[in-house]
Amino acid sequence: MYSDKYWEKEEIMPLKEIEELQMKRLRFTLKNAYENVPFYHRKFREAGIKPEDIKKREDMAKVPLTVKEDLRENYPFGLFAVDKKEIIRIHTSSGTSGKPKVVGYTRDDLENWINMVARCLYMVGIRDHDVFQNMVSYTFFTGGLGFHYAAERIGAMVVPSGTGQTEKQIQYMFDFGTTVIHATPSYAMHIKEVAEGMGIDPREIGLRIGCFGAEPWSDNTRKRLEDAYDIKAYDSYGLSEMNGPGVAFECEEQYGLHIWADHYFIEIIDPETLEPVSDGEKGELVLTPLTKQALPLIRYRTGDITYILDEGKCSCGRTHPRIHRILGRSDDMVVIRGINVFPSQIEDVLMRIPEVGDHFQVLITRNGSLDEITVRVEMVDEVFTGELSDFQRIQQKVQRELYKELNLRTNVELVEKGTIERFKLKSKRVIDMRDNL
Amino acid sequence: MYSDKYWEKEEIMPLKEIEELQMKRLRFTLKNAYENVPFYHRKFREAGIKPEDIKKREDMAKVPLTVKEDLRENYPFGLFAVDKKEIIRIHTSSGTSGKPKVVGYTRDDLENWINMVARCLYMVGIRDHDVFQNMVSYTFFTGGLGFHYAAERIGAMVVPSGTGQTEKQIQYMFDFGTTVIHATPSYAMHIKEVAEGMGIDPREIGLRIGCFGAEPWSDNTRKRLEDAYDIKAYDSYGLSEMNGPGVAFECEEQYGLHIWADHYFIEIIDPETLEPVSDGEKGELVLTPLTKQALPLIRYRTGDITYILDEGKCSCGRTHPRIHRILGRSDDMVVIRGINVFPSQIEDVLMRIPEVGDHFQVLITRNGSLDEITVRVEMVDEVFTGELSDFQRIQQKVQRELYKELNLRTNVELVEKGTIERFKLKSKRVIDMRDNL
Ligand SMILES: [Zn+2]
Ligand SMILES: [Zn+2]
Repeated sequence: MYSDKYWEKEEIMPLKEIEELQMKRLRFTLKNAYENVPFYHRKFREAGIKPEDIKKREDMAKVPLTVKEDLRENYPFGLFAVDKKEIIRIHTSSGTSGKPKVVGYTRDDLENWINMVARCLYMVGIRDHDVFQNMVSYTFFTGGLGFHYAAERIGAMVVPSGTGQTEKQIQYMFDFGTTVIHATPSYAMHIKEVAEGMGIDPREIGLRIGCFGAEPWSDNTRKRLEDAYDIKAYDSYGLSEMNGPGVAFECEEQYGLHIWADHYFIEIIDPETLEPVSDGEKGELVLTPLTKQALPLIRYRTGDITYILDEGKCSCGRTHPRIHRILGRSDDMVVIRGINVFPSQIEDVLMRIPEVGDHFQVLITRNGSLDEITVRVEMVDEVFTGELSDFQRIQQKVQRELYKELNLRTNVELVEKGTIERFKLKSKRVIDMRDNL
Repeated sequence: MYSDKYWEKEEIMPLKEIEELQMKRLRFTLKNAYENVPFYHRKFREAGIKPEDIKKREDMAKVPLTVKEDLRENYPFGLFAVDKKEIIRIHTSSGTSGKPKVVGYTRDDLENWINMVARCLYMVGIRDHDVFQNMVSYTFFTGGLGFHYAAERIGAMVVPSGTGQTEKQIQYMFDFGTTVIHATPSYAMHIKEVAEGMGIDPREIGLRIGCFGAEPWSDNTRKRLEDAYDIKAYDSYGLSEMNGPGVAFECEEQYGLHIWADHYFIEIIDPETLEPVSDGEKGELVLTPLTKQALPLIRYRTGDITYILDEGKCSCGRTHPRIHRILGRSDDMVVIRGINVFPSQIEDVLMRIPEVGDHFQVLITRNGSLDEITVRVEMVDEVFTGELSDFQRIQQKVQRELYKELNLRTNVELVEKGTIERFKLKSKRVIDMRDNL
């Protein structure tokens, strides 16, 4: 480690130096792609550009974008820039349809990745005396091995527990003295329920820190998780195409995620026009890795909607820019009566209503030519001990709050706790039935 | 790596030097246990011995044995010799009943372990140009992460596939150009059947090497696996209490498993009298780790039955002793009419009969005061196209061959392929119904 506070000295490098380093490293990535990946050689030629044409930040707008489909079409190793012999790891992410995306790592890529994730864990205060229970799936998913290697590098006691066998895992937390957990927010909520079912108050486990990622979650869910476990909860961002976790992470300020600008070139584009947005505007995050040897994806469309916070230097001392927690995925965005809606907006509203429980579901149907949106919401147990008139009040309140946020009239259905199906990995919160009609 | 042929120079260290190193390291382990593990301090005092009393190999017989129950009773960290802060990994193995066994590793322990497994993989010819598909479970099981780290250390392209989704895994083998697989022998047999169901001949995948372990298997199963996949199949031996895999492994001679004597002190005892057996005699393997900081188990009863081959130096050049592949576990041993029977003996007989398929099951019942043993055997498809009289001939042949090996009369039941339930992880081959009567 670099110091008591920072894992690597690059974390506090003056922003100007980071930007110089970015341009230097960007030339390496562009050259690597152009010279070693026929796909990029062709794309660059078609666009009439050469790596050496990219001299300043703004020049990047001329470079063609890469999309998820490009990975699938070049399955499995078509976008690799190095010989198979140099690759020491692959991961895959299987989408809903078609071929999986396959990503590869050289030994240097893996070293860089481990240190990026270690930066994040060290940043939120994880040290060698911690017991780190890694409650996500291992094997092909980058979240498992990505955190595992980094926590081990820091010297924490890593409990490679994976998902499932939740009761046993809760027992292990007590027995091993677990202080940090890594999980998806929805699995963490599930664990809480199972613990309560076992008669255990999760606050008594003795956890200090929770790292949550792999699905969008809101500040209000954060409050619930922090409250349920008596922890500080941090948002983790990454995607396998950019190594995996460790691309961006909240610091102890819990105000935006530092995105490691010495390893990624960061752009925000309008997902419709594909043009860069103005400073601080919302749009799709586009990343170019700056140090990746095996898979130099150029201007990769992450599909994630966010914006860059412009708040000057963070009080944690880190100089890397901060992005807002992911607002939604361009894929998740549903257009209802011409209005863009992200499930995260709905979650945000619901989670600040105290009568609302931890689970909800959105159903979209078509009634004639009119889209209908129904939000099914689990109530907290306490609600069911009250008067029936209360239901109407809560229903109206939820409807009103949703209207304020979405500018859309919704049908609100209140249901008992446990009614909505739980998913361990990713929440499946929106059911769009319009295509079925 | 040390050379083109050996991962580490210790592999070809003269046996005399290994034995000197063993005694030196044994003093470290005994001292570590005595001074840092109250359980051992007490046991040593009760036995009236001190670490410095152990001056030569034979003195070890005075030292108390450690059994699996000791780990369970000291759950979770009672036998650890270092502070929790020094531990960077734990694994668990849940037995059939009671508390799991918990094992821990310091950073040095992990380094040693990785290199021990890397030795094994390098020994059978795995190199950086190989594609290594690791088809065992990750998380708590040492077989997953143990092989993963080692194959990565060698520089092979590691495909961390885990178990399950077998059709997809077969597809990946083709697409990624997999050359090496690691699996349990029974999962490998299952994969073969699934591939055939997909209309794929597993010989066409292009595999070179298979590493198989975590359950006992026979030389005849080896022939079947080698034939099914057109590979060389190697036996892997280890147990989490001794790090995990990498304790012993076959070399290219496929004649016994080299057991790494610079990391383990090796004894064979009579499981009844607990006395050391004579040279070359069958008995239970007892191991003491020589370099393990976190968990210095002393004279640990592995429960595995084997013997030390006395064939002089191996033609591969490695000087470390060789053990016979595991003959069975003392737990698996069943006593029928006063005769010790290991399921592996039955397997051995069955697998050399060409009419017999890949699966069998042993049922033990009691008829009055007499034990009855019934062996249910799947036939290969070809048998069912022949005459009925053939059945009788095959049945008698199987019975005769079993009698020769076991000195026991058995009932033999021939069944169609697919009749006997398949298990992914460990074969559950013996059903002893005598306790249920
Ligand atoms: Zn900060
Ligand atoms: Zn040999």
